Amino acid sequence: MAEPFFLDCDTGIDDCLAIAYLIGRGVNLVGVGTVSGNTSAAEAAENTARFLGALGRTDIPIAVGAHNPLDGVFAGTVAFVHGENGIGDVDLPAVDATRVDTSAAQLLVDLARQNPGTLKVLAIGPLTNLAIAFALEPRLPELIGELTIMGGAALAPGNATAAAEANIYKDPVAAHTVLTSGFNTILVPLDVTMEHTVGAAEQERLSASTQPGLRAIGAMLDTYLDFYIGVYGERRASLHDALAAAIATGDVSLSLAPEASVVVETGRGPARGQTVVDLRGRYRNYALSVSAGALSRVVLEVPADAADTIMTVVERIDAPAAPAV
Amino acid sequence: MAEPFFLDCDTGIDDCLAIAYLIGRGVNLVGVGTVSGNTSAAEAAENTARFLGALGRTDIPIAVGAHNPLDGVFAGTVAFVHGENGIGDVDLPAVDATRVDTSAAQLLVDLARQNPGTLKVLAIGPLTNLAIAFALEPRLPELIGELTIMGGAALAPGNATAAAEANIYKDPVAAHTVLTSGFNTILVPLDVTMEHTVGAAEQERLSASTQPGLRAIGAMLDTYLDFYIGVYGERRASLHDALAAAIATGDVSLSLAPEASVVVETGRGPARGQTVVDLRGRYRNYALSVSAGALSRVVLEVPADAADTIMTVVERIDAPAAPAV
Repeated sequence: MAEPFFLDCDTGIDDCLAIAYLIGRGVNLVGVGTVSGNTSAAEAAENTARFLGALGRTDIPIAVGAHNPLDGVFAGTVAFVHGENGIGDVDLPAVDATRVDTSAAQLLVDLARQNPGTLKVLAIGPLTNLAIAFALEPRLPELIGELTIMGGAALAPGNATAAAEANIYKDPVAAHTVLTSGFNTILVPLDVTMEHTVGAAEQERLSASTQPGLRAIGAMLDTYLDFYIGVYGERRASLHDALAAAIATGDVSLSLAPEASVVVETGRGPARGQTVVDLRGRYRNYALSVSAGALSRVVLEVPADAADTIMTVVERIDAPAAPAV
Repeated sequence: MAEPFFLDCDTGIDDCLAIAYLIGRGVNLVGVGTVSGNTSAAEAAENTARFLGALGRTDIPIAVGAHNPLDGVFAGTVAFVHGENGIGDVDLPAVDATRVDTSAAQLLVDLARQNPGTLKVLAIGPLTNLAIAFALEPRLPELIGELTIMGGAALAPGNATAAAEANIYKDPVAAHTVLTSGFNTILVPLDVTMEHTVGAAEQERLSASTQPGLRAIGAMLDTYLDFYIGVYGERRASLHDALAAAIATGDVSLSLAPEASVVVETGRGPARGQTVVDLRGRYRNYALSVSAGALSRVVLEVPADAADTIMTVVERIDAPAAPAV
């Protein structure tokens, strides 16, 4: 059996692309947790269940996770990016999903204990569930084989604020805990995710698909591309979460990913939620870059064809949708 | 008469290069204030007086400025970068300088009032004196024609910390005040200063000069190049302050300098002292970049020959030194 994967997500339009990527790739997805971010944890779970159903999968355990960040309350759905329901206001049929009656954090701990040293974790929302799981099980960094996080901005501008990326900004305390607790981490920040995009051509292809899940992504991308006009000046959107998925599976290689210490600004000033990545080694090609403390591989560059790699895997899905209930 | 310049500095090895640049350029330098940074404000004044003397100039008024930052105490000389005395432990003769018996901040206010709308200010140390001057004279932003600041890190890593550049880090409160108070500001951050360097060739030429000030810079650069091996992996050093001087005079043009709001993180977390520059417009060539609040032109790129431009001006100085006292 292929290595087990756990996905923590806040589904989310680009989360759907990441889920489609994992399914298209045939990843052994043993569990999914949800967290408030693009939408609430509860709605993210429902979106995830329905979207997986549209891809023909109702067998994957889904657990609702933290509604609020560790040091505040959930700020609400980001409707201007992801639509009112988190998935571009696309109406997917309800399915008979595999809901588990435990928290996302506990599900992650259970799966890590069942798969010590081999479980791969992909976190594409705020890191609240990960921090809670670490509180429940302090050995989690050793139990998890590898943790890939979509989040942060190393040298690139933020998106939630000038300094901070949205996933980290929405729970800086959790992010700081996770990034400084010795996990074997690959951080996939805006530096690289903003450089790999899909546009009108991909949106049209997906919209014309006979596979219901892919067709739904096409519809969702319509909303997402609208939002991104304000970012790129044209209809193309970054593949944030899907790129992290393709990195977690090893399908997209790391062209430049220095090891660096990462801490998170948790104060209430203008840098709140910023990932402070020690990249002072940049002027010597990171060759002598020895940072103290917990280290992450921080992905700054991947091959130029990453978006094509991702879409090829996504578009190969041809399963029928699960029956609506 | 050429437009009047005021220089605020913490001399400092690269400060000496900036001073040499202004003198070589024939700038109408009507006053110099000093501030604690590379060394103490008092020692910076002595260094400035002696270095100007070595360049043959004892006529320029020099005022000692703030010893401590606005919200703490001076952390001490950065001996591992600039030597114990701030100028690479080079021993310059004392000269009969023009010391003025007022604070640097008051001198700046006086000069701004005497030259309303025309005084150009170049600040190459922590911004304490500027903030105090603004407290003394709230009309200072209108009175000053243009303020060029060497400081900050927009998208580049910091140097004092992973997030913060040294001048801003040493007085974040003053920097925040200055950068958000409506000055017509050009910010020259590490993004551009780290890309323009001098190396062994320039150091050898200066060391062989018959002009005492230039020969002294050659000796200082020996210390500076040693420090920078840890940064660049080789003996070359950035022209931080001198580049800001050449930008302030208009001699080095701005290839990329978007207008952006700049605030400073003043909290005590890992991003303390960071210049949070809103560069979210980067993905559309800053074309639609409309930031709220006070705007600075943030210099991200200058022509590749900037270092040559600077050294040509510096090396043309051939005045005899002022007599030692």
